[in-house]
Amino acid sequence: MKTQKISEAVVRRLPIYLRYLNELAMNNVTTVSSQDLGQKLDLNPAQIRKDLAYFGEFGKKGIGYDISYLIEKIRQILKLDRHIQVALVGAGNLGRALCNYNTYLRNDMKIVAVFDALPDKAGEVINNLVVRQMGQMKSVITELGIRIGIITVPATEAQNVANEFVACGIEAILNFAPVIIKVPAEVRVHYADFTTELQSLAYYLD
Amino acid sequence: MKTQKISEAVVRRLPIYLRYLNELAMNNVTTVSSQDLGQKLDLNPAQIRKDLAYFGEFGKKGIGYDISYLIEKIRQILKLDRHIQVALVGAGNLGRALCNYNTYLRNDMKIVAVFDALPDKAGEVINNLVVRQMGQMKSVITELGIRIGIITVPATEAQNVANEFVACGIEAILNFAPVIIKVPAEVRVHYADFTTELQSLAYYLD
Repeated sequence: MKTQKISEAVVRRLPIYLRYLNELAMNNVTTVSSQDLGQKLDLNPAQIRKDLAYFGEFGKKGIGYDISYLIEKIRQILKLDRHIQVALVGAGNLGRALCNYNTYLRNDMKIVAVFDALPDKAGEVINNLVVRQMGQMKSVITELGIRIGIITVPATEAQNVANEFVACGIEAILNFAPVIIKVPAEVRVHYADFTTELQSLAYYLD
Repeated sequence: MKTQKISEAVVRRLPIYLRYLNELAMNNVTTVSSQDLGQKLDLNPAQIRKDLAYFGEFGKKGIGYDISYLIEKIRQILKLDRHIQVALVGAGNLGRALCNYNTYLRNDMKIVAVFDALPDKAGEVINNLVVRQMGQMKSVITELGIRIGIITVPATEAQNVANEFVACGIEAILNFAPVIIKVPAEVRVHYADFTTELQSLAYYLD
């Protein structure tokens, strides 16, 4: 696996496949065709076959994909078999929403630490997570082996938080603040910015 | 323009270009090269040139792109020159966060109506928006000419809300609930699901 570089577009589709495959598995479905996947996910079946072919020969002609095998493989590819720990900075409305969302994340990936710069917020409990002070970040991240950081602070604070994440050894950042952040090349940043989501939807209006 | 079908990946990158171009314009920068754009946005310059070439010949060799012209064109392409009205259903933490986010959206796209199924929430004010009852949806959407709907309700309620949006003539939906929703083919759905964002980030961990 991973003998060739996989494009970001493919990496972004894999969790979408995974979600639907998990749904099927919960309903005791055992195989699925690329046609079924394509119809459900509004993707071209040929595209799906191409995406999955990056990782090996999962499907069988005329039968389709073995769902439990495919789930296992995608989880391996996405490294979800590792119990990844996530930290979040910014316990406002959005931060709270994400912590409550934790329930939907399976055991593979969890927000395990929440920080906020406001001293008032320290000690607050959100969905079993205690809000901590920024000064505790380094020790908590090291102790819990946290590798991914989420930024849900105002735009003006996002770069500061990113800097602190980097200083604490965070390897990947999901930034919800509506601003571009600068990090060293080895740190991966994804932007989960609602503006861009909404703007790209507008394109599809007639 | 739009003589050829533009891929979703390109449509999703345009708002990202737009955000950075707006930043540059605010700093009185007038031209930018695809190299600069690429470096800032962590994209291949050739990819950027290809993306923008879909829409016509914007750039000049050795000079780069005229920023104000490019902003205007991308806004036209994304149909942001139209003042698009957005409705949101689900005034929980996430819904509140998005309403507060309204401040960052320019005049081109605004959440102008908020609904919640809980009678308790009706009348609550979030960032100048009054939470309305679901029964008012049809009349409000028609009256305000709302075309895009955002879903921030629990997973179990998302399909119901999607059905109501469709019945009210909504043309595009941004779904934050962690569940796949079914809508007629002419309605566009984007999923803004944190799980998939986090899972695709995990791939980039060593």
